[in-house]
Amino acid sequence: MSEVATEKISLQEIYDLAFDVFSKYGCNQDNATALSRIVHNAERDGSLSHGLFRVPGYVASLKSGKVKGEAEPNVKQNLPTIISVDGDYGFAPYALEVGLPVLAKAAEDSGIAILKISNSFHFAALWPETEFLAEKGLIGIACTAAKPMVAPAGAKKAFFGTNPLSFAWPRKESTPIVFDMATSTLAMGDVQIAARDGHAVPPGTGLGPDGNPSDDPQEIIKGVLLPFGGYKGSAISLMVELLSAGLTGDNFSYEAGTTDNNDGGPPKGGELIIAISPALVAGNEWSTHSEMFLKKLKNMEGVRIPGERRHKNRLDQGPRFINKAMLDKVKKLLE
Amino acid sequence: MSEVATEKISLQEIYDLAFDVFSKYGCNQDNATALSRIVHNAERDGSLSHGLFRVPGYVASLKSGKVKGEAEPNVKQNLPTIISVDGDYGFAPYALEVGLPVLAKAAEDSGIAILKISNSFHFAALWPETEFLAEKGLIGIACTAAKPMVAPAGAKKAFFGTNPLSFAWPRKESTPIVFDMATSTLAMGDVQIAARDGHAVPPGTGLGPDGNPSDDPQEIIKGVLLPFGGYKGSAISLMVELLSAGLTGDNFSYEAGTTDNNDGGPPKGGELIIAISPALVAGNEWSTHSEMFLKKLKNMEGVRIPGERRHKNRLDQGPRFINKAMLDKVKKLLE
Repeated sequence: MSEVATEKISLQEIYDLAFDVFSKYGCNQDNATALSRIVHNAERDGSLSHGLFRVPGYVASLKSGKVKGEAEPNVKQNLPTIISVDGDYGFAPYALEVGLPVLAKAAEDSGIAILKISNSFHFAALWPETEFLAEKGLIGIACTAAKPMVAPAGAKKAFFGTNPLSFAWPRKESTPIVFDMATSTLAMGDVQIAARDGHAVPPGTGLGPDGNPSDDPQEIIKGVLLPFGGYKGSAISLMVELLSAGLTGDNFSYEAGTTDNNDGGPPKGGELIIAISPALVAGNEWSTHSEMFLKKLKNMEGVRIPGERRHKNRLDQGPRFINKAMLDKVKKLLE
Repeated sequence: MSEVATEKISLQEIYDLAFDVFSKYGCNQDNATALSRIVHNAERDGSLSHGLFRVPGYVASLKSGKVKGEAEPNVKQNLPTIISVDGDYGFAPYALEVGLPVLAKAAEDSGIAILKISNSFHFAALWPETEFLAEKGLIGIACTAAKPMVAPAGAKKAFFGTNPLSFAWPRKESTPIVFDMATSTLAMGDVQIAARDGHAVPPGTGLGPDGNPSDDPQEIIKGVLLPFGGYKGSAISLMVELLSAGLTGDNFSYEAGTTDNNDGGPPKGGELIIAISPALVAGNEWSTHSEMFLKKLKNMEGVRIPGERRHKNRLDQGPRFINKAMLDKVKKLLE
């Protein structure tokens, strides 16, 4: 691993830097606050590919006019269990702040509810939304499509997005179980970071522009990513396309690929979120029962509980060491 | 591949054979009908590890008294969107016949609904339940846990079941998109069939009893299966445990492992099924929009649409060529 220069910066400074940048490029208070919180929380949790690294992309889409910095998302409850948010062509974090509490209330009342978000631009991780639900005692499932970057199993051309799927399971006495995975072997953000830092990527990550497997992130960026776990991961990615585009009415990855202006920011798309109340579905014993299972799992040698590393990082309120070249790039946006 | 002796038998004969066997060992009309239909449909669709191959296991659990052949499943609608079926200690197919129509009606009314099945013994594929929903124009998601056979990512000991996950997407003008996958690299049924037929299994299928990777199905049966796609598939398998046991109140795989009588049949467990109405969630355009996507996917070189092979097999109403040794074993149950 090559030595990469870093700079020490506090979490508050990370938030303020992001807020100032988003405000300068046209975000109103509500949108800048939601976005900066997302960037801050990603750096806090060590989710580096969704932190400051994303800021230039957000700014590119504000500058190109593709995304509205003053978007006013509109929430509707179509049925007691169906909530929809029209994102008004803004970034997803503010649309989520508007929609998630309504979804949570619906699941608390009805046991299960569904939120579809459309006309929105998602450039962040999905764990913030599933964790929000888990912290209210609900199970959260979220997914979104993107632009074509992944070849379906058997193909050599991009058609699926990296199509992340996130799941959170609430726990009464500790932080929730949370996973948030690209359904590609690696997320494109991780491949980009490997390219930036000069690292090879694991076998199965992708194909080069010639259609042959490669471990060179530069080649894969010119080629195509592969789904994780072969045809099974490809089926999961297909499910994500159908739920997040087919069920929201917004873009499938291939549609985003042909309509996006390629300004470096995220494409317009949909997101689907399901919330379930374990108390209403399973009854009062749900927590005791599942905690016995989770305790046994945690005690197994070699096992890592999904979400645990992020929650551990979160406890550290100290400064973060940020890639210096990237930080300079973000700071330069204020000049 | 070694030559395996087969015998030609009609689909009706397959159904009748299964029905006679189940009736002989104590199933009443309703349970024998539901079970024989499941066996028949599996052989019809080429889903061999869930057809006649399973009959001796079903019989073992009827003989041991673990499973009731005269079970009367009881369905309750706890809330408009939450349905529960107590399987009365019978096999799952009849419990599903009782619960699925209630789930479908709830999803048609409310947009989304959830069915939890408990006190039931599942030994079949999951596509029959998700397909049932898709044929009514609904999205179906189903999962169930089993006995410990899969090591979580990083571990060398079994803790998860093969924990299948099935998803079906309805189509107005053709058969639905359906996947039904073990979250292990291979299902144990497939490993058993490979062992029977003397085939090696793909790398990543499992570890031998010494904890080292193996491609010998005999060794893996003595050792442990691995999740598909490493830690990502392991996270999906964890989600299946939490949904199908944590949310139904029935056995996690490790609980089934300690309480089951190991008679060769399935352990007691829960199943969770979610049904979603695309018409109510996405609106009237859902079908046109998703069909454009599916058409593009189908036209890609090298891509196979999940469920297509089974639906193609189904069109063939002719006889099936069944492994002779296995067929003899089933017939012998009638002697």
